[in-house]
Amino acid sequence: MTDKRPFDLLNNSLEKSVVVGIKGGVEFRGTMAAYDVHMNIVLEKAEELKDGVVKRGLGTVLLRGDTVVYIMPSI
Amino acid sequence: MTDKRPFDLLNNSLEKSVVVGIKGGVEFRGTMAAYDVHMNIVLEKAEELKDGVVKRGLGTVLLRGDTVVYIMPSI
Amino acid sequence: MTDKRPFDLLNNSLEKSVVVGIKGGVEFRGTMAAYDVHMNIVLEKAEELKDGVVKRGLGTVLLRGDTVVYIMPSI
Amino acid sequence: MTDKRPFDLLNNSLEKSVVVGIKGGVEFRGTMAAYDVHMNIVLEKAEELKDGVVKRGLGTVLLRGDTVVYIMPSI
Amino acid sequence: MTDKRPFDLLNNSLEKSVVVGIKGGVEFRGTMAAYDVHMNIVLEKAEELKDGVVKRGLGTVLLRGDTVVYIMPSI
Amino acid sequence: MTDKRPFDLLNNSLEKSVVVGIKGGVEFRGTMAAYDVHMNIVLEKAEELKDGVVKRGLGTVLLRGDTVVYIMPSI
Amino acid sequence: MTDKRPFDLLNNSLEKSVVVGIKGGVEFRGTMAAYDVHMNIVLEKAEELKDGVVKRGLGTVLLRGDTVVYIMPSI
Repeated sequence: MTDKRPFDLLNNSLEKSVVVGIKGGVEFRGTMAAYDVHMNIVLEKAEELKDGVVKRGLGTVLLRGDTVVYIMPSI
Repeated sequence: MTDKRPFDLLNNSLEKSVVVGIKGGVEFRGTMAAYDVHMNIVLEKAEELKDGVVKRGLGTVLLRGDTVVYIMPSI
Repeated sequence: MTDKRPFDLLNNSLEKSVVVGIKGGVEFRGTMAAYDVHMNIVLEKAEELKDGVVKRGLGTVLLRGDTVVYIMPSI
Repeated sequence: MTDKRPFDLLNNSLEKSVVVGIKGGVEFRGTMAAYDVHMNIVLEKAEELKDGVVKRGLGTVLLRGDTVVYIMPSI
Repeated sequence: MTDKRPFDLLNNSLEKSVVVGIKGGVEFRGTMAAYDVHMNIVLEKAEELKDGVVKRGLGTVLLRGDTVVYIMPSI
Repeated sequence: MTDKRPFDLLNNSLEKSVVVGIKGGVEFRGTMAAYDVHMNIVLEKAEELKDGVVKRGLGTVLLRGDTVVYIMPSI
Repeated sequence: MTDKRPFDLLNNSLEKSVVVGIKGGVEFRGTMAAYDVHMNIVLEKAEELKDGVVKRGLGTVLLRGDTVVYIMPSI
């Protein structure tokens, strides 16, 4: 095992902009307000993206961890 | 971990209007009457939406947590 | 958490007409005779529906909870 | 909860003709010889059906519970 | 519950020819050499079948239980 | 149960050439260097196959057990 | 069991370039910064690949273990 753990990335991303990809290819971008051990994630000021294009603004959204594919700091 | 937890969003949404997206792209909009740790959710005065358009009124509906993709306060 | 729980809806629906949607878009309508914690559900005088149209009568049917998407009182 | 339980239907169907629907829309009809808590089911004198038409006779078959969608007494 | 259990069929099939159907519609036919509680199955002198036609001989193959849909004595 | 267990095949295949089929129809062929109880498997000198044709050489690869469909000694 | 374990490959790949394939055929290439027992993986200087072609640079990305198909040292 390693000193760094995957969940460190989640913790370090709190209050920062992230992109979350879910099964089926849709992405959500927003400010990560909360997460838990199941990778349930709350984004604020969230947008839904398809192929990198904003489809709609969502406000606050809770993404169920089971559907998450990847999470990355927004660059 | 953080002080805020994803389930806080569910608790704060009780008796309020939410949109729940499920696997396959269908959404349900209604007043959240109940939820549990599995993210099973009961909506009242619920409507089924496809691509943002209301397809039918449903009255009260129990959504099984396993199929939930996201939950957001209706804006 | 809340005083109301999602399974209350199941309990209150016993001996009443419900519609159960399963993965793949098929619905079953019938009188709910039994359920358990896995959301396995027994419907009596059941019908299978596709796009709101009755496809066939089924008599009594046990639906496996794993495939359930939603359950609602029939209106 | 209720006095009736979904597994009662399985127990009452032993040695009787049932139809079992599995994921993907295929059905199996036969005499239920055994079941367990996982809904693994053994049918004897089984037939495979597609859209209500017999595709082939199977003799005895063990269906894995994980793939079961519904079970109903054959009418 | 019943005196007969689904796993009896597996035990009685040891060293006998069986057909195993997996998710996606492919079947494997061979002599069942071993199984476990997860329904992991080892077939010897195995063949892969598609629509009842032999596609290729495989020798010995371990099928992961998670993908098994049905198991039946070869007739 | 039986004296032979499915995992015996894995143990007997260590340092030998195997073919591993995964969900979606892709196969990997290589020398099995390691496995665990989840059927996570490490192949060395691995190749990716599609319809029996080598698509690319991979070197060493860890296959996640969850996606494994079958494992067989390469013949 | 064997002296070598699949997770050894992950541990040996820390701070090295790996390719991670996920369900649906997409691959991610980057420097493995962290992993855990669920095969959640953090890649730094990551790129998303489709059919071996770089689609976009991602910076740092957390891949959820549930979606991982294979992991291999980049060659």
